Amino acid sequence: MTENLKFAVIGGGSWATAIAKMLCTNLPEISWYMRNEAAIEHIKTEKHNPNYLSSVEFDTNKLRLTHDINEAVAYADYLIFAIPSAFLEAELANLTTSLENKIIFSAIKGIVPETSLIVGEHFHFNYNIPYYNIGVITGPCHAEEVALERLSYLTIACGDPEKATIVAKNLSSNYIKTKITDDIIGTEYAAMLKNIYAVAAGIAHGLGYGDNFQSVLMSNAIREMKKFIKKVHKMKRNINDSAYLGDLLVTGYSVFSRNRMFGNMIGKGYTVKSAMMEMSMVAEGYYATKSAYQLNQGYGASTPIINTVYSILYEGKNAKKVFKNLTDQLD
Amino acid sequence: MTENLKFAVIGGGSWATAIAKMLCTNLPEISWYMRNEAAIEHIKTEKHNPNYLSSVEFDTNKLRLTHDINEAVAYADYLIFAIPSAFLEAELANLTTSLENKIIFSAIKGIVPETSLIVGEHFHFNYNIPYYNIGVITGPCHAEEVALERLSYLTIACGDPEKATIVAKNLSSNYIKTKITDDIIGTEYAAMLKNIYAVAAGIAHGLGYGDNFQSVLMSNAIREMKKFIKKVHKMKRNINDSAYLGDLLVTGYSVFSRNRMFGNMIGKGYTVKSAMMEMSMVAEGYYATKSAYQLNQGYGASTPIINTVYSILYEGKNAKKVFKNLTDQLD
Repeated sequence: MTENLKFAVIGGGSWATAIAKMLCTNLPEISWYMRNEAAIEHIKTEKHNPNYLSSVEFDTNKLRLTHDINEAVAYADYLIFAIPSAFLEAELANLTTSLENKIIFSAIKGIVPETSLIVGEHFHFNYNIPYYNIGVITGPCHAEEVALERLSYLTIACGDPEKATIVAKNLSSNYIKTKITDDIIGTEYAAMLKNIYAVAAGIAHGLGYGDNFQSVLMSNAIREMKKFIKKVHKMKRNINDSAYLGDLLVTGYSVFSRNRMFGNMIGKGYTVKSAMMEMSMVAEGYYATKSAYQLNQGYGASTPIINTVYSILYEGKNAKKVFKNLTDQLD
Repeated sequence: MTENLKFAVIGGGSWATAIAKMLCTNLPEISWYMRNEAAIEHIKTEKHNPNYLSSVEFDTNKLRLTHDINEAVAYADYLIFAIPSAFLEAELANLTTSLENKIIFSAIKGIVPETSLIVGEHFHFNYNIPYYNIGVITGPCHAEEVALERLSYLTIACGDPEKATIVAKNLSSNYIKTKITDDIIGTEYAAMLKNIYAVAAGIAHGLGYGDNFQSVLMSNAIREMKKFIKKVHKMKRNINDSAYLGDLLVTGYSVFSRNRMFGNMIGKGYTVKSAMMEMSMVAEGYYATKSAYQLNQGYGASTPIINTVYSILYEGKNAKKVFKNLTDQLD
C-alpha cells in the first residue's frame, strides 16, 4: 500500500529541491509545486532547477511540476512543505482544495510570523489538521550536501510512527539515513531555536570573538535549548541526539548559514534593516528570535542567549555591550 | 596567604606559554621550566618564546626561567604541568626534589603511554600524590587565542575546592573566565577522549564526508563520551558543560587541531607511520585511542567511534570500510 501513496513537495528552494531529489530515488512520480513558472519551464527542458542545487539532474518523467498549489494538494496523500515560514501563509491563501485527510510534513525551520506558531502548530490550530497527520522532517542537513550525495542523517518526527516510517522510507537512500521519533514538538522547536543560536554565533564572530568562545556559546546554547523545549513540551528526549545537537552544530558552525551571516553583519555594525537588505533574503532566525522571546515570557526558562539576540534585533541595543554582559552569564 | 603561594609552569610549548602569560597577569613572579636552553636565553633577551606564541611579550622580571626541573619544583607550591603526556615520564625521571606536599595541576590532555593512565592517576599511583593535591586545568581553549587575548573559559577541577579556587583566581583576567568543579576524573577523561573524536573527525574529512556527517559524528561523540566517563567515574555531571562538550567542539571543529590533521591524513590514505613522520609532532589522540580502547575492554561501554579509530590506527583496518560500517551505528 505504501507503493500507492502519493507525495507532493511544496516549494522551489534548495531544501525543496533536495527533498524532491530524495523522493525521486524511491518513487515513480511526485508532484512538485513552485511559484516560479520560469523555473518550472527550465526544469522541464534542462532537467535541473536553475536557481537552487542546479547540479542535481532530475528524471523529468517522474516530476509533475505545477505552479498551482491546489493541483499538488489534490494529487498527494503526503504534502511536504519546504518554503520559508514567512511565505507560508501567502501560499496557503491560494488554497481552494481541502487539506482534510492530507498528511502534512513540515520541512520548514521557523515560525509563522502571522501567528507566532511553529509550522505544525500553525496547521493544527488554523487548518484543523489533527496532530497524528502532522510531521516534521529535520536535519542536521545542508541541502547542498544532499546535492553532492554526501552522507546525511534525517530525523522524521510524527505522532503516528507508521506515517513517520513511510516518509523515512521514501527519503532514504545510500546517502540518506533516517530515524523516526514521536517528538514532533521538540524537533520542530529545536530546528527553530538553532537559527537564533546561529544568529548569536554570527554576532559573536562579527564582534571578534574566536573559536574558544564559539564552543562555549554552543555548549551554553544546547543547555538553553534543552530548558526551553522542556518548558514547551516535557517528555523524555536526549537533547544530544542529532535532531537537536547535530542540527544546532551544522548551522552554528556553518559559514554558509544565512542566519550566521545575518548575525555576522549585525556584529560588524550593520543595522538590522541594512543587513537584511544587503542579504536580500530572509534569515529565519530573525523571526524566530521574536517568537521565542515572547513565548518565553510565559514559560520563564532561563534563556540569556535568546534574550541577548532579542535585545539587539528588536530593542536596538548595542551588540558589543550586551554581548559583554552575556559573556558573564555563560560558563 | 594566597599572595605568598608560588607557581611553576612545567613545559615550553604553546599551552605552557599561554599559562605562563595568564599567571603573570596575577602574580609578581613565577618559575618556568623548559628543556630548551636556547629558548630560555631567547626569552631572557627578546622577551618572548621563540617557538610558540611568539607574539606574547613577557615582563622578564617576573620570570624565573630554568632548564632544571628540580629548581622549579623546589620553588613552587603549585606545579602546573603542560608538556605532552608522551614526554612526562622522561621529564619526571630527572626529579631529585620531592613532590611531597606539592599541589600538582595537569594541563596535559592525554594518557601517559608508559602507564596508560590519565595524568592525575599517574601522579596518584606512581608518585603517591593524594587526590586532594591533584587538579586539572581544562578548556575549551586554543592557546593561540589566549595569545590574542580573545575571551576564553577555563574549567579548574580539584577534589579540594579551595585549591581549585586559588588556581582559578590566578589564571583569571579580563579575557579568561574560570569555573571550578570537583570532577577531576571526568574532566580529564573528557580532555583525553575528545582527541580521539578529533582524530575521527579528521578521518571522516579525509575520506570525503561533509559537514552534515561531522555534526552527526559530534552528536554521537558526546553521547559516547558520556557513557564512557560514567563507567569510569559515576557522578552527577552535565556532559554539555563547556569542559566536556565545549572542549570536544573546539577541538573537533578546529582545522588546526593536530589530532584532526593526523586523522585527516589517515583518511586520505597515509599510513599511521607516514602521517606521524609528515607531521613531525605527536597527536595525543593516537595514544589516547589505545588506552581508551583497552580500558573499555573492562568497562564495556558502547563506543563505536573509539573502536573504529582503534581498528584503523592499531589493527591496520581499511579506513573507508570501517567508517562505512561506523555510519550504520550512528544516528
